Amino acid sequence: MNETITTLLNHRSIRHFKDKPLSDEQIKTIVASAQAASTSSFIQAYSIIGIKDKEKKRRLAEIAGNQEYVAENGHLFVFCADLSRHELIGEMEGKDVLTSIESTEKFMVALIDAALAAQNAAIAAESMGLGICYIGGIRNNLEAVKELLKTPERVIPLFGMTVGYPERINDQKPRLPIEHVYHEEEYQQDKEVYLRQLKEFDEMISAYYEQRTDGKRKDHWTEQMANMLEKQTRMYMKEFVHKNKMNLR
Amino acid sequence: MNETITTLLNHRSIRHFKDKPLSDEQIKTIVASAQAASTSSFIQAYSIIGIKDKEKKRRLAEIAGNQEYVAENGHLFVFCADLSRHELIGEMEGKDVLTSIESTEKFMVALIDAALAAQNAAIAAESMGLGICYIGGIRNNLEAVKELLKTPERVIPLFGMTVGYPERINDQKPRLPIEHVYHEEEYQQDKEVYLRQLKEFDEMISAYYEQRTDGKRKDHWTEQMANMLEKQTRMYMKEFVHKNKMNLR
Repeated sequence: MNETITTLLNHRSIRHFKDKPLSDEQIKTIVASAQAASTSSFIQAYSIIGIKDKEKKRRLAEIAGNQEYVAENGHLFVFCADLSRHELIGEMEGKDVLTSIESTEKFMVALIDAALAAQNAAIAAESMGLGICYIGGIRNNLEAVKELLKTPERVIPLFGMTVGYPERINDQKPRLPIEHVYHEEEYQQDKEVYLRQLKEFDEMISAYYEQRTDGKRKDHWTEQMANMLEKQTRMYMKEFVHKNKMNLR
Repeated sequence: MNETITTLLNHRSIRHFKDKPLSDEQIKTIVASAQAASTSSFIQAYSIIGIKDKEKKRRLAEIAGNQEYVAENGHLFVFCADLSRHELIGEMEGKDVLTSIESTEKFMVALIDAALAAQNAAIAAESMGLGICYIGGIRNNLEAVKELLKTPERVIPLFGMTVGYPERINDQKPRLPIEHVYHEEEYQQDKEVYLRQLKEFDEMISAYYEQRTDGKRKDHWTEQMANMLEKQTRMYMKEFVHKNKMNLR
């Protein structure tokens, strides 16, 4: 196993950072790594906002549900789907690009582009001995994020990423067994097989939590997921995205 | 610069592969690396379909616009946004999860989850000396892909990824200068600055193509983008996604 794969397989989210900022050199390397990721037809439909300002971080931490590590870290990135520069390009070149830009297809392209770049950033940071945590919590209130970071129309802040020197290293969370997510030749459709797999995974996760919490917690994954999904959260998203002129047609 | 960052920065899409399949061991390592990526609230909302079958690859190559390397490679992965298992979990746990699952928010979560996993797979493959190319072209006709790979409702095939031993190594494509995509503290909104940056990048790209093609090609990036976006492609996507019960509310 090479060093890179060791880094990939060793990933865990870090939620406690030392009070030490990243250097500009580190930030540059992380962003350059992000930019080196594949991009759909060279479109580069994303932007990254880097935040050092303590007040801004504090406000984003509040939005994300008072997660302390969103305020206290080495650097905070916010990754955005961005088709705003492509609107400008349409103007420059005198071509009508708006129908394309406002399509569900290009919304998907922008999300995927941003996520590929972000994951490269995460891997770059981890390879330098830094820890990272994705912050989906900023989607609790994108109107507030938009106001704070001054993102224009056709830009959707997707998630934050805290990066820094780890203060505390958590255990690694298990994943679904490979046969749940990896299908050979075609999608596996047998419901009985799938239910059995889910029950087996529940036992595994339950043992993981029990060991990790000295028996205090024994959650099942399916129970966690059902409880989470029963709550209808961030249901404003469709309207927010439409208002910002993406995913419209 | 460490080995991992060297791998990240050295990325280029590979479009000519040797006729040598990946070993099952390599496939497993790539999928394990994919699974190690972060996942929103542990939701793991994606599936990967691995294709060895020559006929199936040939058919996917046709769908993707007759790209030979979709048929001829070491292995072909198809990454899917997948909330289908979460519907089953709702049934198992007797909870109404469908409103959540059908939201734009969860559509975004599933796309981002799938893309993070895919990028880890790409990096794992490249770190082993293999080459990769993302195949957005499968989105030319997702109805056909769905039929071929038997994906159920709440599963959206997003892109393929060809992996294999490189037969020919292409030049690396330049990227937008960092100041285009990286904003400090807040989104940069000055249109004049932005137009100037775009013109500078156009000169750079033009020089790149000129050198690469012995002067035959001198495209500008903005021109490429405007021409691409003027064509309204894959406009069926919104309906396809809705029909598969995602991004609905």
